[in-house]
Amino acid sequence: MPTDRITMAHGAGGAVMGSLIKDRILKHLGGTADDKRIELALEELDDSAVVDGIVLSTDSYVVKPIFFPGGDIGSLAVAGTINDLSAVGAEPLALSCGLIVEEGFPLEDFDRLIASSGRTGREAGVPIVTGDLKVMEKGALDQVVVNTSGIGKRSPYLDSNIEEVRRYREFDSEWIRDSNVRVGDVIIVSGFLGDHGITVLSFREGYGFESKLQSDVAPLNKMIGGALEEGGIVAMKDPTRGGFSNTLNEWAEKSNVGIALRETDIPIREEVHSACEMLGFDPLDIGNEGKIVVAVVKEKADAVLEALRSFEEGKDAAIVGEATSDIRGVVLETLVGGKRIIDMPVGDPIPRIC
Amino acid sequence: MPTDRITMAHGAGGAVMGSLIKDRILKHLGGTADDKRIELALEELDDSAVVDGIVLSTDSYVVKPIFFPGGDIGSLAVAGTINDLSAVGAEPLALSCGLIVEEGFPLEDFDRLIASSGRTGREAGVPIVTGDLKVMEKGALDQVVVNTSGIGKRSPYLDSNIEEVRRYREFDSEWIRDSNVRVGDVIIVSGFLGDHGITVLSFREGYGFESKLQSDVAPLNKMIGGALEEGGIVAMKDPTRGGFSNTLNEWAEKSNVGIALRETDIPIREEVHSACEMLGFDPLDIGNEGKIVVAVVKEKADAVLEALRSFEEGKDAAIVGEATSDIRGVVLETLVGGKRIIDMPVGDPIPRIC
Repeated sequence: MPTDRITMAHGAGGAVMGSLIKDRILKHLGGTADDKRIELALEELDDSAVVDGIVLSTDSYVVKPIFFPGGDIGSLAVAGTINDLSAVGAEPLALSCGLIVEEGFPLEDFDRLIASSGRTGREAGVPIVTGDLKVMEKGALDQVVVNTSGIGKRSPYLDSNIEEVRRYREFDSEWIRDSNVRVGDVIIVSGFLGDHGITVLSFREGYGFESKLQSDVAPLNKMIGGALEEGGIVAMKDPTRGGFSNTLNEWAEKSNVGIALRETDIPIREEVHSACEMLGFDPLDIGNEGKIVVAVVKEKADAVLEALRSFEEGKDAAIVGEATSDIRGVVLETLVGGKRIIDMPVGDPIPRIC
Repeated sequence: MPTDRITMAHGAGGAVMGSLIKDRILKHLGGTADDKRIELALEELDDSAVVDGIVLSTDSYVVKPIFFPGGDIGSLAVAGTINDLSAVGAEPLALSCGLIVEEGFPLEDFDRLIASSGRTGREAGVPIVTGDLKVMEKGALDQVVVNTSGIGKRSPYLDSNIEEVRRYREFDSEWIRDSNVRVGDVIIVSGFLGDHGITVLSFREGYGFESKLQSDVAPLNKMIGGALEEGGIVAMKDPTRGGFSNTLNEWAEKSNVGIALRETDIPIREEVHSACEMLGFDPLDIGNEGKIVVAVVKEKADAVLEALRSFEEGKDAAIVGEATSDIRGVVLETLVGGKRIIDMPVGDPIPRIC
């Protein structure tokens, strides 16, 4: 692998991408440390930044194929940025949509993805208020790329959520952040893991698993609002590129805690298990687009679990582990009672699923 | 030309793109009319939207080559979105940066464009606070695409600027908008037109004009702030894709006024004239990346001109025409005293300059 060129792993959301960001991006971008307007900065590498009370997030989508069972690049782009805004404790207000399209792209497909973007935004109550369109010559781009950026404001439930945390332990953050997890906090996942990545891969490669699977792509702002209203949440993340493994390793590293998981409690569908066994993937590394992982003070874990389950998108939510000082990193207690270290994925086993 | 597929003209910022947006995008995207949070909506098609007091803008950059005399895709992306925010009367606060990179892209070039983005942001005082990186397989993308989105707040000079307008005429807008131009308003351009587009084209194709030319790419937020502080400005636009012709036709259409221009007063460099004559282009259709076109009440025209000229980026600013009821559309009084209608460009004579 050449070391002087961008590789697929650089875009995979795992360890290689993390090094690229730390070594080559953070020294040039980001605000100055004395800029008091920046509450949540680039170098924190949370899902969104906060400047002057405004939450800002961006994501570009390169999924292939652009239409897949359960969604398409339009619904994915809108839901994805809504979820990133929501994950820091923001109420999403509005989105921008930047389309980059290959010359010769069918207008019928263009219409479909625009309609799907609009529908997803309306479902979530988040309008797309500005946009941009660029066309590249035939051959200069594989079909279409969609960027969505979004703005939000502090959720009306964030202050009461934090008050609830402070009933049980110290908490010095004003936002929901990767670095907020402490020993004793409980880890909840909002439903089955791996559906999106396996569906897109299977549909793309013709493996056939998608006959019983579909992408979980969905805007989660309403469910996350419901969970925050319950209170006690300290960290949230939508486990997209790099999957659940990446999310928990980021938390463990940024929060400096160990995380212990129980394999029996992690919701994974039989089809995803089968596909992963066949293909040699760990389902915990597979990207999701309609799930949220939540860290919550233990006293509120059952209540937050119920709040998530009261939404269709969270009906299969489950408590899967807790933060601990007994171990370092992320460790899974397996079905047979053994222990397996869950590392930060190096690359993404399935490129271009988002 | 097939009518069921995206063509280069759909991305050119002219009439074909306008139809695509009106016919195929606005019916799906945008907010609902009763959403009172949206002050400046998608359907207004200004350079930025305003939601709940927050100004939001987005732009993707596909320029080829990515490095060119006077700038590169990084400085272009940062300056462009800063200028779009500034053009509605916002003070830019922060940017996001979404990078989409082709597998195999040299890390050295990656470093250069990141450094250039950061430098341009620092010069403008606008930090890049969040970002995203995607990698596409070799051959699926021509090198790199950069999306920048940005947020801003109402400029501290906007209210006094509007008060100044209201000393001289009625003004019912709370923002600087394309639809605000009225008969009698004076049109100012902040410097030489066409430098960016001709430089990129000439460098790409090896025509040699770029030996005496360079791109004008620059963030204009400080100059625009200075002009707003002077007051009396009703509309502003950075004449990028579709150039000056596109800007004035948008104003004429949205404001329902005629615009009369004097060719002798429009600043265009000899090299740009020569290149355009050789290539059969109208210099007024060529995209710029460091210019602003301003419409101002006539009583304040000289003062705003001086304010622009007090900045390095505006030292060649000139008054070039005025809004009138004598004509419809945009009409140029030529060097020899004739009249030429300046139409909305149909496509862009030079693709991929931004």
